[in-house]
Amino acid sequence: MKANKTKYDVNPDLAKERLKCNFNIEEVTFIIDGGKEKTLQRKKIEDIALNNGDSLDEVPEECLSIKERYENAVRKSCIYSNKVRREMLEITGIENYASPVLRRTADAFFKDISPFMLHLGMFVPALMGQSTPDQLAEWLPKALDMQIIGAYAQTELGHGTFIRGLETTATYDPEKEEFVLHSPTLTSYKWWAGGLGTTANHCVVMAQLYTKGECHGTHLFIVQIRDLDTHMPLNGIKVGEIGPRMGFSSADNGFLGFNQFRIPRENMLMKHAKVEKDGTYVKSARHGKLTYGTMVFVRVTLVSEMSFNISKAATIAVRYSAVRRQSELRPNEPEPQILDYPTQQHKLFICIATAHAFQLTASWLWNTYEVVMADMKKGNVDALPELHALSSCLKAVSTSDALSHIEQCRFACGGHGYMLSSNLPFLYSFVAATRTYEGDYTVLLLQTARFLVKAWEQAEAGKGVTQTVSYLNQSANSKRVNWDNTHEGIIKSFQAIAAGKIAQCVKSIRDRIKSGMDYEDAWLMTTVQLVGAAEAHCRVIILSTFSSEIRGMTKTTSPELKQVLNQVVELYSVYWALETLSDLLQYTTINQEDVDSLRVWYEELLAQLRPNAVGLVDAFDLKDEMLQSTLGSYDGRAYERLMEEALKSPLNAEPVNHTFHKYLKPFLRGKL
Amino acid sequence: MKANKTKYDVNPDLAKERLKCNFNIEEVTFIIDGGKEKTLQRKKIEDIALNNGDSLDEVPEECLSIKERYENAVRKSCIYSNKVRREMLEITGIENYASPVLRRTADAFFKDISPFMLHLGMFVPALMGQSTPDQLAEWLPKALDMQIIGAYAQTELGHGTFIRGLETTATYDPEKEEFVLHSPTLTSYKWWAGGLGTTANHCVVMAQLYTKGECHGTHLFIVQIRDLDTHMPLNGIKVGEIGPRMGFSSADNGFLGFNQFRIPRENMLMKHAKVEKDGTYVKSARHGKLTYGTMVFVRVTLVSEMSFNISKAATIAVRYSAVRRQSELRPNEPEPQILDYPTQQHKLFICIATAHAFQLTASWLWNTYEVVMADMKKGNVDALPELHALSSCLKAVSTSDALSHIEQCRFACGGHGYMLSSNLPFLYSFVAATRTYEGDYTVLLLQTARFLVKAWEQAEAGKGVTQTVSYLNQSANSKRVNWDNTHEGIIKSFQAIAAGKIAQCVKSIRDRIKSGMDYEDAWLMTTVQLVGAAEAHCRVIILSTFSSEIRGMTKTTSPELKQVLNQVVELYSVYWALETLSDLLQYTTINQEDVDSLRVWYEELLAQLRPNAVGLVDAFDLKDEMLQSTLGSYDGRAYERLMEEALKSPLNAEPVNHTFHKYLKPFLRGKL
Repeated sequence: MKANKTKYDVNPDLAKERLKCNFNIEEVTFIIDGGKEKTLQRKKIEDIALNNGDSLDEVPEECLSIKERYENAVRKSCIYSNKVRREMLEITGIENYASPVLRRTADAFFKDISPFMLHLGMFVPALMGQSTPDQLAEWLPKALDMQIIGAYAQTELGHGTFIRGLETTATYDPEKEEFVLHSPTLTSYKWWAGGLGTTANHCVVMAQLYTKGECHGTHLFIVQIRDLDTHMPLNGIKVGEIGPRMGFSSADNGFLGFNQFRIPRENMLMKHAKVEKDGTYVKSARHGKLTYGTMVFVRVTLVSEMSFNISKAATIAVRYSAVRRQSELRPNEPEPQILDYPTQQHKLFICIATAHAFQLTASWLWNTYEVVMADMKKGNVDALPELHALSSCLKAVSTSDALSHIEQCRFACGGHGYMLSSNLPFLYSFVAATRTYEGDYTVLLLQTARFLVKAWEQAEAGKGVTQTVSYLNQSANSKRVNWDNTHEGIIKSFQAIAAGKIAQCVKSIRDRIKSGMDYEDAWLMTTVQLVGAAEAHCRVIILSTFSSEIRGMTKTTSPELKQVLNQVVELYSVYWALETLSDLLQYTTINQEDVDSLRVWYEELLAQLRPNAVGLVDAFDLKDEMLQSTLGSYDGRAYERLMEEALKSPLNAEPVNHTFHKYLKPFLRGKL
Repeated sequence: MKANKTKYDVNPDLAKERLKCNFNIEEVTFIIDGGKEKTLQRKKIEDIALNNGDSLDEVPEECLSIKERYENAVRKSCIYSNKVRREMLEITGIENYASPVLRRTADAFFKDISPFMLHLGMFVPALMGQSTPDQLAEWLPKALDMQIIGAYAQTELGHGTFIRGLETTATYDPEKEEFVLHSPTLTSYKWWAGGLGTTANHCVVMAQLYTKGECHGTHLFIVQIRDLDTHMPLNGIKVGEIGPRMGFSSADNGFLGFNQFRIPRENMLMKHAKVEKDGTYVKSARHGKLTYGTMVFVRVTLVSEMSFNISKAATIAVRYSAVRRQSELRPNEPEPQILDYPTQQHKLFICIATAHAFQLTASWLWNTYEVVMADMKKGNVDALPELHALSSCLKAVSTSDALSHIEQCRFACGGHGYMLSSNLPFLYSFVAATRTYEGDYTVLLLQTARFLVKAWEQAEAGKGVTQTVSYLNQSANSKRVNWDNTHEGIIKSFQAIAAGKIAQCVKSIRDRIKSGMDYEDAWLMTTVQLVGAAEAHCRVIILSTFSSEIRGMTKTTSPELKQVLNQVVELYSVYWALETLSDLLQYTTINQEDVDSLRVWYEELLAQLRPNAVGLVDAFDLKDEMLQSTLGSYDGRAYERLMEEALKSPLNAEPVNHTFHKYLKPFLRGKL
């Protein structure tokens, strides 16, 4: 934080860039936030978060040991969470406890992560989604006011993706009206839950429910794991930290084992299924589908989270590229800004476009989610499979794309991008985790593929299909779609690619069955292709959503804004057309000349966006305190800040490290 | 290290895999090492390195603070380097101080990196390449015996790629017969040099040489920077650590600034150019080209280094995939090993193949390098441009591929791959640096592209071209090469792709010049295409070298070995054919049916390699102590080791962290 407090004049190159910008930056900010009102609210909330005096950290957190990092994070989490519960929630309203605006302010406090994050991020949503009204009344006020602090423990050391394989058991004892939680093996230990290792005193635990000698599959239980007064683990609980990770260093991800640990019957979260006093199991008709709620909710928010992270990386890399000068184009001329190199623009401008694409897709997905949830309350669960398929592939593709774009931004900053003080490595390791947790990339795309294969079979049989796969009706029959070198043509081609790939998968599966395989093996052997088909479908969704949302939003805006946003949308679609050229060549009539014009179009878009690049990242409106980057600060004083930050390293506190006398000198003199 | 000392029985799934292997593992190991003799020598050296008793580290190094990590690394570096200078160099011979075998043993000591690494890795090679015989006699024995410890400082805070832009000056003062080193600006501070921050007492420094009022460009100087007795920085020297990085946490990468700092005239490294006492500058005729030596040498070794790192990642991920079971293919059957999933095989088997491809290409490149260096000593520098072009693109592509393959391995290990104890994040952050240092990916490919464009023009003019681009002669004229669905056919197609892309670049540049651009702008606008052309050329080199080397080596081996290695080579070429399908579709006559058979071929190869997968990674012969991975140990006891390692975290040393009483409890009770 301190680094960003020093006042410098804006770097002259960056100042010049800002003069070039030909649109009103605020107009773009409003679009990102979802309207002027929301921008104002966000700024109000950020002002509260950022008002911290001078010194949240004396020493940069990345210089500390694992233990110190955790302890420092607890200290800051208490300061931050007090602001949340006392001031910020009053502005958003308590029902918006999971608002991204709220969550993002944490970035001004932690380069890494707060050990409290999953309390509001998973524990509270699980309670809200799975509790009876009585349970809600008991637990929710305590949780929202943070009188208790909780974690969410599902994954086990030996089991992640395949929830049915979880080993932890909850066996009902009707005598005492209690459940007995037990971890029968090493692999059944809960593993990974954020905040569980040393912080949480409560935990929502997923376990196999046994009653009357029968297993009823996995259910959720709320469990107190530590004494509220001493914080000692309760008898029968073995809990601890899982050890250092690539990121999430201060999140105290934990393990948890039970030795015949007893909890009251009322601690089973019984909204969708219950165990009566005598041990009778009663299941709601919709149990199977309703438990998806929390999972889908988290996936939906992750798409918006990815937009936010890409916008950070883009801001850092674009500002630095305006400041950094390198090489010599012509003898005796000054070194050009690296932002002038087309190879650099190629790496960076797609990040700006992707941040917008994901943000607008996330908003759209959020609206879809709310409609489906409202329908579900009325008993209609028909739209759930489509929502599930959508949220699965969008989570997979958005996290995967975000990761590779952030990596490109780091590459684009050369060696300095490798400095932790650039913040790019933190962004990378944070997003790297999102690609795996809450559903691994490959696994999620295969879930979407199941939905797509079913949809294709329905379309084939002449039955109606849902809106997001309606392109199957139009495209399923024609072989190659006619190439049309326009934005709309690209979308149409992407639909043809997705439809063609799904059709090929169906054919592969059928061929394999004909040759004697059973369905399961035929599916398995087709999985590499199925992943490709689901990804293609996802590209259709993002591309068409992005395009239609921007078209809607720019109807009434200034012509300059309309122009630049159209360029952004076009860049996004042309970039992906060129990336998936092998598909275009197989599923459309595109020829060599068309490919060449596509490339020229792309180069023109890079050149058109060049003067507005800094304006576009300024429009993300990321405060220095939240960006926490030596390379990306608003004033562009990258070199000054790199040196300032270096001097904070404890290794520079003394001119000679004591190991010189203890080890190095004797060694150099051959006396060790 | 300690984790690997616990003895477990081999995991039964892994034991079964080893029974399936149908070739002699040692035969493959010999090929990797370059012959049985070399394998035996390697094992002898490794035995010395690994013989360390029980406890090199009490606490895992990744749990320590930045300062403690450095101090711990100095301690271990002294132990390790004593072994090197006293025992290991006797086996290899002192002339092989840079042998990869030697360097790799350091991995048994450091998860991260030794602060001494660049002493042997850059300081000594720079001395050897740039010193006069007198200078060698003075400095080299001290350096090799490690009586002094050095760093190599070239990059500056504001200048990396563009060496001519360096700002540090060395101005000759004939009065005192001294050079005055000076850092005129903040951006002129040396930045990044490994070992420079706190460890080195000497440094090879690159600076702009001024004498008699004239600048003669960059030259190298050897500079003592710290007092040998007290280790205090000398007067006029400002030196320190640059702050935490994504990796290389214990390498004390440093900054260095000079304030009118004087060194004797004799400290300029004068092999290729000298300044006489009176200040007269005398340059060797070959100066410009000869200074490339060290740079090319480092790039050549990096290709082999990449092979080593991929083989580690592959070993970890393949063994873990044999042990991890997940999901349910058929009701009531046990969860399958994840190695049985084609999507997993797709991620992993290419890593095995790539490790071999890079190792054999590196050996071939090393031989080429030695021939060219020997020629240079005789005054013939004709082959240098080709070597430079080769080493540039191979360094770029091998580091870039290694990075993405290692990332795939991490993804393939799911959440556990994100644990630092898996070692995969260390491999990732280590290799991530190699993609940038010693020449960034984009910059290097553009250097190769310059060579290719020239070669194309020569071929066009009917002049002879050198061996590695001889395909330009055959392919430059034909439009689309006939597709041939064989291994040889793929190589031929790759040549056609590279030739076609180079031709297109030349055409683009000429068209742009015709439309009025000057050459520099035309080149600049074509850079995205040029990068693609250079990469395509590099794929030709790797594919054809790998193929011909394996063909040569398996002439006399057992048929089983021949078979499995042929499968590996074919997998490599078919994988890349499918990855570059858009190119095949543009530059060859491949049709949809051919594409389908290519896919089937690929799937068959995955299935053929499946039973030998564990045998193939065992053949890399990576000792547990060097692999340092909870997921990848030879016994496959991933879960036991994960838990064992977790319990070593200082966060688990006490049941309640003191911040509970200080912060958390008051906070939860609303009293903070």
